[in-house]
Amino acid sequence: MPAKTTNTAEHLRNTLDGRWRDVKNRMREQLADEVFRPHYTPNTVIARTKVSEQMKIMAAAGAAEDGFRKEHGGTGNIGAGITQIQMLAMSDLSLMVKAGVQWGLFGGAVENLGTERHHAYLRKIITLELRGCFAMTETGHGSDVQSLETTATYDPATQEFVIDSPTASARKDYIGGAAETATIAAVFAQLITPEDGEPVSHGVHCFLVPIRDVDGNDLPGVTTSDNLYKGGLPGVDNGRIVFDRVRIPRENLLNRYGDVAADGTYSSPIESPNRRFFTMLGTLVRGRVTVAGSAGAAAQVALDIATRYALQRRQFKAPDDEGEVLIMDYLAHQRRLLPLIAKSYALQFAQNELVAKLHDLQTSDAPDPEEQRELDARAAGLKAANTWHAVRAIQEAREACGGAGYMAENRLIALRADTDVFTTFEGDNHVLTQLVAKELLTAYADDIRSMSPVEWVRFAANAVSQRVLKRTAAETIIQTIVDAGQDSEEEGSLFNRGTQIKMFEDREEYLLSSVARRLQARTNEMSAFEAFNAVQDHVLHAAQAHTDRVVLEAFVAGIDSCEDDQAREVLGMVCDLYVLSVIEDDKAWYIEHRFLSTERAKAVTRGINERCRTLRPYAETLVDGFGIPEQLRHAEMLHPENVPG
Amino acid sequence: MPAKTTNTAEHLRNTLDGRWRDVKNRMREQLADEVFRPHYTPNTVIARTKVSEQMKIMAAAGAAEDGFRKEHGGTGNIGAGITQIQMLAMSDLSLMVKAGVQWGLFGGAVENLGTERHHAYLRKIITLELRGCFAMTETGHGSDVQSLETTATYDPATQEFVIDSPTASARKDYIGGAAETATIAAVFAQLITPEDGEPVSHGVHCFLVPIRDVDGNDLPGVTTSDNLYKGGLPGVDNGRIVFDRVRIPRENLLNRYGDVAADGTYSSPIESPNRRFFTMLGTLVRGRVTVAGSAGAAAQVALDIATRYALQRRQFKAPDDEGEVLIMDYLAHQRRLLPLIAKSYALQFAQNELVAKLHDLQTSDAPDPEEQRELDARAAGLKAANTWHAVRAIQEAREACGGAGYMAENRLIALRADTDVFTTFEGDNHVLTQLVAKELLTAYADDIRSMSPVEWVRFAANAVSQRVLKRTAAETIIQTIVDAGQDSEEEGSLFNRGTQIKMFEDREEYLLSSVARRLQARTNEMSAFEAFNAVQDHVLHAAQAHTDRVVLEAFVAGIDSCEDDQAREVLGMVCDLYVLSVIEDDKAWYIEHRFLSTERAKAVTRGINERCRTLRPYAETLVDGFGIPEQLRHAEMLHPENVPG
Repeated sequence: MPAKTTNTAEHLRNTLDGRWRDVKNRMREQLADEVFRPHYTPNTVIARTKVSEQMKIMAAAGAAEDGFRKEHGGTGNIGAGITQIQMLAMSDLSLMVKAGVQWGLFGGAVENLGTERHHAYLRKIITLELRGCFAMTETGHGSDVQSLETTATYDPATQEFVIDSPTASARKDYIGGAAETATIAAVFAQLITPEDGEPVSHGVHCFLVPIRDVDGNDLPGVTTSDNLYKGGLPGVDNGRIVFDRVRIPRENLLNRYGDVAADGTYSSPIESPNRRFFTMLGTLVRGRVTVAGSAGAAAQVALDIATRYALQRRQFKAPDDEGEVLIMDYLAHQRRLLPLIAKSYALQFAQNELVAKLHDLQTSDAPDPEEQRELDARAAGLKAANTWHAVRAIQEAREACGGAGYMAENRLIALRADTDVFTTFEGDNHVLTQLVAKELLTAYADDIRSMSPVEWVRFAANAVSQRVLKRTAAETIIQTIVDAGQDSEEEGSLFNRGTQIKMFEDREEYLLSSVARRLQARTNEMSAFEAFNAVQDHVLHAAQAHTDRVVLEAFVAGIDSCEDDQAREVLGMVCDLYVLSVIEDDKAWYIEHRFLSTERAKAVTRGINERCRTLRPYAETLVDGFGIPEQLRHAEMLHPENVPG
Repeated sequence: MPAKTTNTAEHLRNTLDGRWRDVKNRMREQLADEVFRPHYTPNTVIARTKVSEQMKIMAAAGAAEDGFRKEHGGTGNIGAGITQIQMLAMSDLSLMVKAGVQWGLFGGAVENLGTERHHAYLRKIITLELRGCFAMTETGHGSDVQSLETTATYDPATQEFVIDSPTASARKDYIGGAAETATIAAVFAQLITPEDGEPVSHGVHCFLVPIRDVDGNDLPGVTTSDNLYKGGLPGVDNGRIVFDRVRIPRENLLNRYGDVAADGTYSSPIESPNRRFFTMLGTLVRGRVTVAGSAGAAAQVALDIATRYALQRRQFKAPDDEGEVLIMDYLAHQRRLLPLIAKSYALQFAQNELVAKLHDLQTSDAPDPEEQRELDARAAGLKAANTWHAVRAIQEAREACGGAGYMAENRLIALRADTDVFTTFEGDNHVLTQLVAKELLTAYADDIRSMSPVEWVRFAANAVSQRVLKRTAAETIIQTIVDAGQDSEEEGSLFNRGTQIKMFEDREEYLLSSVARRLQARTNEMSAFEAFNAVQDHVLHAAQAHTDRVVLEAFVAGIDSCEDDQAREVLGMVCDLYVLSVIEDDKAWYIEHRFLSTERAKAVTRGINERCRTLRPYAETLVDGFGIPEQLRHAEMLHPENVPG
């Protein structure tokens, strides 16, 4: 066992915690409170009641204040606000989602899409006096938000908007809080004004629509229902809302980016309807960032539990000595858990940078629009990466604990069930991955966001830009490493950071430029739809490669920020394992495109095994580095009483 | 749309149904009964009550009779018995597990490990008058059954066995039926007899131990408890049992393979304790086969639902015409679902052969021991393949349905949650995969089963045999195809069945012989444990390759058995997609070992896309071919009322 691993673990934790480490430490103390002890129940009444209590305690402690600006009763520390919500995921994902909906999505919509007259509500939102929901998704449209069917038609006679669900598929669906707790909804609907007697649509806008009275009864014209049982998240009251010509005052339009005067005249500071719409959506990026971080946190809890179990569970005798073998000592078991732990480290560093970027932009007086779009793309890529990682890592952790892993008392199955939906909410991962590629390939050109995937292909064939790969983190450090690196074909070089970075960069550049070439070639030969289908898998692959590179750069910057030699050395090995696992997953591509000889390809696998061996003694240290409060990583099977010995 | 697809679907279904198609058709009618309509509840009381009712209805209909021999009150149609239990998986996996435990595991133990005095119970087991559980797994030992800690010590003075849990980890755990319903347990315990005053252990044997009285109270010395919430299977009352010196009559030993005389003398028809133990276990292979088939059935239901959803769900406008694009028309969506459907076809054909092999062996008067071991290995490989496929396919199906996929009313999440445990029960998939390789590499040598993985490596280094690859199905057909096939490097040849078979065979042979070489090389250089770790991933890979080949052979035989030209053509395309997907998953290996040039490797991907395109018009036909009764593939989102239009 290496010396001073406790100390190393502390340094790892501090490095992984990043800029908001003090907030994390404070949250660790709060989450040690009995009320946040994880407790499994599939019963929605019990689960919802418990989450309500927890929300009240958090609100009373001022937990939501960081997420809002000072002039609205908050502290304006956006990064701290996101960090706190993410950390709730370690206790209960239902709680994280409820807090995210109330303060992040609903509160965020009121603050960022509304104006002074709406900001008056914010204090009540912070304190939970006013509980809202975020009514965007409809039964018929989720990914394609611009095609929502709910209408908000202005009636100049009464100076009201009429909110209506004109079709069955216009029903708002899966809305957290809609089943029970929300008294008001932020409803996304097509804004229609009469112009010369004709209805004119101005695209999707957001409206505050009261849905329940104080006794919890639906208001006239509103019909809510309960989605009830889901794959998980029993504490979240997801529901449906149907509007039958519900009238709301003109002032309930969240009018920062588009307003309707008393006489029905529409005006907006942003002329292009598409840019307006995506500017509105852009202000809501926080939700996506929070989901990414929460999925990451849940994966860490699962890996922590499975690793500690593997460090106590023995099975099958070793012939050389008397006892049974610790399952963590089997190479196959190391290969199941350690690369996932490495990826969790990698993603945490990338998430830290994402939160910092969001914080800096949203607290800036004049945020750069291109930076904003880059943030959106990064959030999309990391949300997909984190949520898919969570599903995979938690499942592997569950299987690695055998039958015990299937018991609710050991936490893994709730983590798995609760995070499952993260791959498809706050943006479907496939659609988000496409978004990343679209932004990259068309250099954040305006208006591409509003295009359907197929339309975009037609556009991109002509507009695709010579992309210059832009490093996202620690530019100087990375350049130095790359310049120093670059050795040739021997096996050792796979552990060379410069070579590693170059392999990630080369793949991304090759993929992006080959997608661009294909786009141009294909659209001449076939219909736009066929052309789209012919490139779709390449588009997804390119986006993936980009996100992998962004993550690696964050990892490199993270290692550089670590102040302890031994911890830095451990982080270096973890980074190797992350890099080699990514390359192994895409090994055929690397060989096919001659970035890897077949001999060197075999060395990738050997390198992974080698890193599993050198990291094995640090297994516990590595999960200690996640800094999960003891109460939140408790599983019955880890309880001393239940450890065979 | 191709002509006569309904007809094609019928032919596909008939071909997929295989030898017990009449039993399947009868079950389809029975499962159309209202009582088998899937209904989601996480509430264990409701779920358990419902499953109890369903069990009674099934028992009354004589559903269990096929699983038992004529002389014991059954019909002796083992294949039909397994087929029926597998099909219950399409209705409710809790029901399938309860039926599997009562009639397959518990009833199977009594019939196959017991003798005449125990067979008297079988009628009552068939009719549910006697309800039992199968108490093998302990908290401390699951995969390594030979190391179970529960003891059964013979006391000649009273002619009783004393059943005891000497340690905390000896507690029986996760036992289906132990929490509530079972009044008697088939307990696996170390049989100990006194010889010259010294206790002598004869290894693990099975004992019938009453655990509850008629009122459901634990009998003296027995302490049961409830595992309560799990990842799924709310209708199964899994529980724990602790024995405190519980006395049972000598006659309660299931004594077919080992007996204790009144005076305490132990005797057995099988001298070697290891062979005896694995002979006992071998009679229980039915459970593993049933789990494989049930996982396969659950995957089919999920793919059916997701495919029908993709054929009605539209998202994003196509520029060329007005409407929105059917999501099944996106290549990326085809690539998500169609290869999984192809794999479900492949696995179903392999499962059919497995059930037939088991039926023939278990109804034979003198089963060949080598055939028995081959059956065990095949069951292990296909259990792992089917259950991992189910987890992956159901998860993909769930994600492919977005938010709707996460709602319980759409079935996918229960299928996912319920089948999850299948990867680790009835044998952990990793351990089973190792077993396959062990059997193959040491040519079913005796005694290797009792070796720990590490011990086996030491043995195998000396004993490894020159394996001759033995084709498992339709030897003549396959030889003809292989002889006719064998074209060279052009792209077209990837669709050539002979080439495909050769690529599977070559990989398996190469992997097995390279593992053998490694075993011999490594054990000289390092400790047995290091040697084991150095080959473990190769061992798993070799086993996987073997199972893939067995599955492909079954597919080829299945196509040959199809009597309709168009259906055969469709099956041929499905088989191509299966083959190319397997090769793509292992593409780097194929390139590294020069079985695939880099150019040809790219053709694999193009071939998959090509088959997705040619199979797209048959999407509905393909899932119709699974033959899932309409009631059992119902999902609310597919209900006409809920389809946007």
